[in-house]
Amino acid sequence: MKNIKSYVQENKNRFIDELIELLKIPSISADSTYKNDVLKTAEAVKIQLEKAGCDKVEICETKGYPIVFGEKVFDKSLPTVLVYGHYDVQPPDPLDLWNSPPFEPVIKSTELHPEGAIYARGSCDDKGQMYMHVKALEYMVATNQLPCNVKFMVEGEEEVGSESLADFVKDNREKLKNDVILISDTGMISKETPSITTGLRGLSYVEVEVTGPNRDLHSGLYGGAVANPINILTKMIAFLHDENNHITIPGFYDKVEELSKEERAEMAKAPFNLDDYKKALDIEAVYGETGYTTNERNSIRPTLDVNGIWGGYIGEGAKTVIASKAFAKISMRLVPHQDWKEITELFKTHFESIAPKGVKVKVKPHHGGQGYVTPIDSIGYRAASKAYEETFGKTPIPQRSGGSIPIVSLFEQELKSKTILMGFGLDSDAIHSPNEHFGIWNFLKGIETIPWFYKYYTELSK
Amino acid sequence: MKNIKSYVQENKNRFIDELIELLKIPSISADSTYKNDVLKTAEAVKIQLEKAGCDKVEICETKGYPIVFGEKVFDKSLPTVLVYGHYDVQPPDPLDLWNSPPFEPVIKSTELHPEGAIYARGSCDDKGQMYMHVKALEYMVATNQLPCNVKFMVEGEEEVGSESLADFVKDNREKLKNDVILISDTGMISKETPSITTGLRGLSYVEVEVTGPNRDLHSGLYGGAVANPINILTKMIAFLHDENNHITIPGFYDKVEELSKEERAEMAKAPFNLDDYKKALDIEAVYGETGYTTNERNSIRPTLDVNGIWGGYIGEGAKTVIASKAFAKISMRLVPHQDWKEITELFKTHFESIAPKGVKVKVKPHHGGQGYVTPIDSIGYRAASKAYEETFGKTPIPQRSGGSIPIVSLFEQELKSKTILMGFGLDSDAIHSPNEHFGIWNFLKGIETIPWFYKYYTELSK
Repeated sequence: MKNIKSYVQENKNRFIDELIELLKIPSISADSTYKNDVLKTAEAVKIQLEKAGCDKVEICETKGYPIVFGEKVFDKSLPTVLVYGHYDVQPPDPLDLWNSPPFEPVIKSTELHPEGAIYARGSCDDKGQMYMHVKALEYMVATNQLPCNVKFMVEGEEEVGSESLADFVKDNREKLKNDVILISDTGMISKETPSITTGLRGLSYVEVEVTGPNRDLHSGLYGGAVANPINILTKMIAFLHDENNHITIPGFYDKVEELSKEERAEMAKAPFNLDDYKKALDIEAVYGETGYTTNERNSIRPTLDVNGIWGGYIGEGAKTVIASKAFAKISMRLVPHQDWKEITELFKTHFESIAPKGVKVKVKPHHGGQGYVTPIDSIGYRAASKAYEETFGKTPIPQRSGGSIPIVSLFEQELKSKTILMGFGLDSDAIHSPNEHFGIWNFLKGIETIPWFYKYYTELSK
Repeated sequence: MKNIKSYVQENKNRFIDELIELLKIPSISADSTYKNDVLKTAEAVKIQLEKAGCDKVEICETKGYPIVFGEKVFDKSLPTVLVYGHYDVQPPDPLDLWNSPPFEPVIKSTELHPEGAIYARGSCDDKGQMYMHVKALEYMVATNQLPCNVKFMVEGEEEVGSESLADFVKDNREKLKNDVILISDTGMISKETPSITTGLRGLSYVEVEVTGPNRDLHSGLYGGAVANPINILTKMIAFLHDENNHITIPGFYDKVEELSKEERAEMAKAPFNLDDYKKALDIEAVYGETGYTTNERNSIRPTLDVNGIWGGYIGEGAKTVIASKAFAKISMRLVPHQDWKEITELFKTHFESIAPKGVKVKVKPHHGGQGYVTPIDSIGYRAASKAYEETFGKTPIPQRSGGSIPIVSLFEQELKSKTILMGFGLDSDAIHSPNEHFGIWNFLKGIETIPWFYKYYTELSK
């Protein structure tokens, strides 16, 4: 990978400008108001893949948002790397907590990012990280150093469950045929400590609705005499955890793998400072399942979180009303071996069973995905490890993440290949939060590291 | 009260048209967006009081919304009735549940109201009921039959706690001097069974805020490791009731008066059909404090209801976020002897004490008021009873209401006079709910009944 450093240096301003253009399009897949913007983003990705050197790029229509597919296959005897990323983003609200508008990217320097960071929704998750791959390809093609075949598959529904992608993968096994899948949609421990994500949690996301009386009621005239859907909903949600923050859904933990003492001791070696963690979040204490450390709680243990709740009067001032309905969005992060469809069913059965007679309950499954664990002795992992060594001067640490990329386990099932998760983001990037950003150093470091993966993967595959 | 029936018959279309004009102004006191409309409503009430025959009407400015004061005092040796009402209304949302726009009044006939009912926010609570008094005055003045002095005090902050009225009353004891206070802001059992409200519950209304991490977090990366403010809030709210739906705030019941067996037996005589009640609300079962009947639960027992809750992502689709903050509006209905300020303090102390270490909790008291019980042997009660007998042909039943008119106990304290609650609304009027309405029969019956109160009150006072 000759001159990769100087190529990045010479072209970095253009790389950043191109990414900023992509970030300006509000491709919020969860909100149908933004449908045209999501479609526009797919077009923009297509154009950039063509410019970077893909021979064939197409917008593949689906029942939902399209998938951008591109490839440069020049020698079938060489390995093929399939790059996956997504061009859709999370909704940006609450908007009032952003210091600059989420779709008007700005570059600001911070203590952690003296070289500047790009502030915008999607800057890290995943437009920024996906675009590192486009620019890495550009470098390899432009300098005639692409060592193997490459395919790109960039989707627009990752933030809402990748439903169309699942169909697309099943229907296009031959087109997507590859030897290894490469994804940058995770993070690393720090700028000094590179890491490779070896595990992802699964996900089950549901919406619940509790209905009491057939209309809103005056809380004076009816208060105390009928089931208040909000009070009932809070009770039902509270009942989902016991006093040790163990989830109470019967059967929930049946398939959860308990790690050995040795494995847990190995995990505990990753650099982590609890005081810094609390300080960064401005909390007095951490909170979670009894018997596990913070890093275990958010990686090897399943969890249940309310992501949104609403009901009754939420305007200014006071309204003395008993609402007819109350709602919540609830997600469960799952660990390998927990089947998301089975867990969704267990949740539904349990949640309906704990409702008192005075209310009706509906549980609507949103989406989900299985967890994933990747071995650290595969060619792909070893190639990624050597790539980081080239550019960071350090061997990366294998790490289980608490996040989910539901599609990864489907890839393995349908395409029979392993996924390598080379993330360049940081925990502090505030993905899914106001003021999401991506360090310019991280962005460029990604572009610089990725070509080495291609080189070592091709060499180790021989 | 000669020709009252024919006077009402001859003028009823005009009475209805005038009320409809008043109902068109969205005087929502809780939402500052409607400030000008609230002020406009005060002006409209002033004009109508002048037209009805008050000698002196003024808009009395306060720190909040003005109070419309009017009087017709013609003989200081005669008793003085002070009529209280309010021209502000509850917020109309959820708007999508209204069958016609809340501020575009329409008249529709129903099974219960074959003569038609006026559908609009405030039609019953309290513009419609307040306006019955204006029209009753018009009749007495126009026919030269006003038997005593009268004063009107109509405020614009009843739905948000009557804060300015409290100051106004304290500062204007002489101006407001009266022998009895007359209010129509409650209901009666049915069109066939008139009743007089003899008790009101007190109220303490608070807003709570639970803050966890200093920003919204990705629920995959942080889920299970930090306190999720929504999960914590649901737990804290659930903890406010025990398994018997008894409120768990220490000291909450200390001053609650337990009624005797005899008193409860007397209450149980009021006509009530549980099946009809459940059917009207479309609920399978009632729900409330163990050991009490439905009618006891919503009148002689204190309660705690969540009136609104919100936090996290409440838009379309899914967002995997741990919100930084979660909120709820909570109100407690109190019974006589419970002091609302003391209860608010008890709530605050308790709620803060049950928060786990990983979150910060704020409790913001909104407003409140004391409960009230009126004796049934006073001149005022007897005059009201005889008035109903004249127009309904039946002795009204004394009844404790679950609602609150916080200002009533302040009136007694500051003005040293009793309040008589002559309500003409029905439970089914959907006050504070979508599709609030007021039967035209009820509206006209109120106008017809009120002058009799003046007559008997004056006679019994001799």
